Amino acid sequence: MLHHLLTTNELKVEEIYQLLEDARRFSKGMTWRTEQQMFTANLFFENSTRTKCSFEVAERRLGLGVIPFEVETSSVQKGETLYDTVKTLEAIGVNAIVIRHGQDRYFDELVGKVNIPILNGGDGCGHHPTQSLLDLLTIQQEFGRFEGLKIAIIGDISHSRVARSNADALTRLGAEVIFSGPEEWFDNHSLQSAKYRPIDEAIREADVVMLLRVQHERHQRKGSFTASEYHNQFGLTLEREGQMKPNSIIMHPAPVNRNVEIADSLVECKRSRIFKQMENGVYVRMAALKRSIESLMGGNQYEAAYSERKLHSI
Amino acid sequence: MLHHLLTTNELKVEEIYQLLEDARRFSKGMTWRTEQQMFTANLFFENSTRTKCSFEVAERRLGLGVIPFEVETSSVQKGETLYDTVKTLEAIGVNAIVIRHGQDRYFDELVGKVNIPILNGGDGCGHHPTQSLLDLLTIQQEFGRFEGLKIAIIGDISHSRVARSNADALTRLGAEVIFSGPEEWFDNHSLQSAKYRPIDEAIREADVVMLLRVQHERHQRKGSFTASEYHNQFGLTLEREGQMKPNSIIMHPAPVNRNVEIADSLVECKRSRIFKQMENGVYVRMAALKRSIESLMGGNQYEAAYSERKLHSI
Amino acid sequence: MLHHLLTTNELKVEEIYQLLEDARRFSKGMTWRTEQQMFTANLFFENSTRTKCSFEVAERRLGLGVIPFEVETSSVQKGETLYDTVKTLEAIGVNAIVIRHGQDRYFDELVGKVNIPILNGGDGCGHHPTQSLLDLLTIQQEFGRFEGLKIAIIGDISHSRVARSNADALTRLGAEVIFSGPEEWFDNHSLQSAKYRPIDEAIREADVVMLLRVQHERHQRKGSFTASEYHNQFGLTLEREGQMKPNSIIMHPAPVNRNVEIADSLVECKRSRIFKQMENGVYVRMAALKRSIESLMGGNQYEAAYSERKLHSI
Repeated sequence: MLHHLLTTNELKVEEIYQLLEDARRFSKGMTWRTEQQMFTANLFFENSTRTKCSFEVAERRLGLGVIPFEVETSSVQKGETLYDTVKTLEAIGVNAIVIRHGQDRYFDELVGKVNIPILNGGDGCGHHPTQSLLDLLTIQQEFGRFEGLKIAIIGDISHSRVARSNADALTRLGAEVIFSGPEEWFDNHSLQSAKYRPIDEAIREADVVMLLRVQHERHQRKGSFTASEYHNQFGLTLEREGQMKPNSIIMHPAPVNRNVEIADSLVECKRSRIFKQMENGVYVRMAALKRSIESLMGGNQYEAAYSERKLHSI
Repeated sequence: MLHHLLTTNELKVEEIYQLLEDARRFSKGMTWRTEQQMFTANLFFENSTRTKCSFEVAERRLGLGVIPFEVETSSVQKGETLYDTVKTLEAIGVNAIVIRHGQDRYFDELVGKVNIPILNGGDGCGHHPTQSLLDLLTIQQEFGRFEGLKIAIIGDISHSRVARSNADALTRLGAEVIFSGPEEWFDNHSLQSAKYRPIDEAIREADVVMLLRVQHERHQRKGSFTASEYHNQFGLTLEREGQMKPNSIIMHPAPVNRNVEIADSLVECKRSRIFKQMENGVYVRMAALKRSIESLMGGNQYEAAYSERKLHSI
Repeated sequence: MLHHLLTTNELKVEEIYQLLEDARRFSKGMTWRTEQQMFTANLFFENSTRTKCSFEVAERRLGLGVIPFEVETSSVQKGETLYDTVKTLEAIGVNAIVIRHGQDRYFDELVGKVNIPILNGGDGCGHHPTQSLLDLLTIQQEFGRFEGLKIAIIGDISHSRVARSNADALTRLGAEVIFSGPEEWFDNHSLQSAKYRPIDEAIREADVVMLLRVQHERHQRKGSFTASEYHNQFGLTLEREGQMKPNSIIMHPAPVNRNVEIADSLVECKRSRIFKQMENGVYVRMAALKRSIESLMGGNQYEAAYSERKLHSI
């Protein structure tokens, strides 16, 4: 069976743990390569630095060939549909595809009809499973567990690809999730996954303060805040950081709006795991690619070479 | 002597057969690599998914390094000519260049002046030799021969890079070519290479129904058709498909305008070889690259390593 | 200590000679590879063919993985700063970064804060050290020395990234530099590094005639010349070439405006080293990348494999 990676919700708890374990091994130097030359393509219909570049690094670390694909110079400009584009890449020998697309659940028109795995690099305001996985890996590295942790997710939950996926996964893994941020940005739907707490309480109680990016490019509602209003009311100021629990950490999916969600000087402070999250992104993407490519290998079509030589001391 | 690949017409029949034979071998797993690290670049001045991506796959399968070149961010934007761009890439060590360009016969200003082979990925309304070769390979795979076959090419012959090249090559290989489509889209020049038949007769008689894309981006003439008018009058409808000969096949260079040139449900039907054509595109491009790079090796400058290990049973 | 390559001025004479020696060895077939898979990224905020493509070739010749980065489809479009972009690439495992940017000394905000070497591919009207190095290599190949040579740099010194860097380096290496071109384009600052000579005298006396590109894209001052006025007054015409010293050579950083800075037929004449300069660009960039990556290896983190097998006869 083909293992796409479309949403965090569809992953069972044991699948999440398996992906995190592979990611951890990759972080310790495990290598994994297919015997046969295999190819991926990264179709990004929206701008990206972190997700695209870290998939590019992950693919090369696995020895996969990467076929460049730029939406702006492709036949998408002649009106070719996403389905026909993916089928074309499948036909010319691409073995796995990463897609970021502005439309929610763009993958529904592909699943069941294409014969290569799709890894979702973000869909509309929907899902971003490799971002969730890298968040989970970062928390697991820090605390060694999820049970009993309190995670505060702060910001615009309703427009966040990550917030609800994370809330769902963290809850299933035994953590307690609370939401905070501008109350008018929450809707009943958001609040099904976790309860709302005022910002200062959330920050004082949390083991993990996970800030969301204010997505200027998605925001058109009235009553928005100026940058400094947002920072004072809902951002992680120096004062609020002083109220955090002793071993608690700061996370943010980036790109950061400095002095909006978080004070400039806190981005690289001792508590911050923001750049650690980016590093972890490579390892979880390697794990996700391995899982998807292994699912192609059912019929012994491909073989992979493992090396855990460096792993004896882990 | 340097072997460019510029037009199908300049290829002798035995050269076509040699390219098809190499392509067949690549499809069966033949590997071919140069001893020395060599580089290619793909210069696409027009949008493309199929041609560009399949050259990218072909190049990597041959172990060639691919130097990224985006017209939009190159010195072409400072007014650098095509000639100076190609000479620059030659100077920095690129060993073969693939070019798609909107100008007919753009290569005339390069041939004889550059010292690396040029592979034409499409010029204006002119030629597209690797598309022709992949069409020929697909027909040869299906029927084992060209002699005695009847090929109907349907659509806008006068704007098609492929139609006249294909007509010429197929005729030289022993097939009979007929044209069909809107009569007002034909000119005397088009009709030099094959005779015109009404659509329903063409489809009933053909072993291969080769549909051309309606190129909205090239069409500005008056009296054009709506999509559904075109489909009813000149498209491959379900009814017309019912009239096709028992073992005849459907081909299309893609991207397909679904429900214009061909009914949506026929694109992936049993007769359709449309995605098979794309797969074959990689093999003919590998063959064309091998031919061009071998022409550089006259002076024993380079050596290649063949492997036909997997070929004993072909 | 991290070895960035930011300006020519900061390089000591012995460092310049070391880079030229490594470049010379690379031109003779030396190979140098890191044991561990390493990655680079090329961030070009301005258009480029030569510099970008030759870094791409150089990186692949050293066996480095190249992570594609297109400014236009990156998070730079969401307002991410250069600093955050570079830190992101560092976090995901990029080991060295090449940057071209329109802002003078863009690197001042990075140095001391990032942990990977930066290679300057051109900053504003400032510096372009790999261009200087390839110019130096070309002169050294030709004359075997710098001492006693007279180099005429002709054109718009004040807007040229290369002119002042070259003047500085050449003077330190023992050559004499003179400037020529439209007098109104010179300012006192330009003339600190070399003295002005009328065009015909400069050309008659020089061992190296180094023409600068008229940068239409940077020029907005009044009193500009038409192309043919510039050519007649300050360009290398056939007549002026006839006045050059017997073994003197012509150089130009390209892209060339043919029949402006230089007569069309002289671009590839016997005296011209214009395409040789481009070839040398690859070798000096290999040397610069090697130097920067070796500076990462202080702590025995990485190892490199040399091969000078082919070098015994050099």
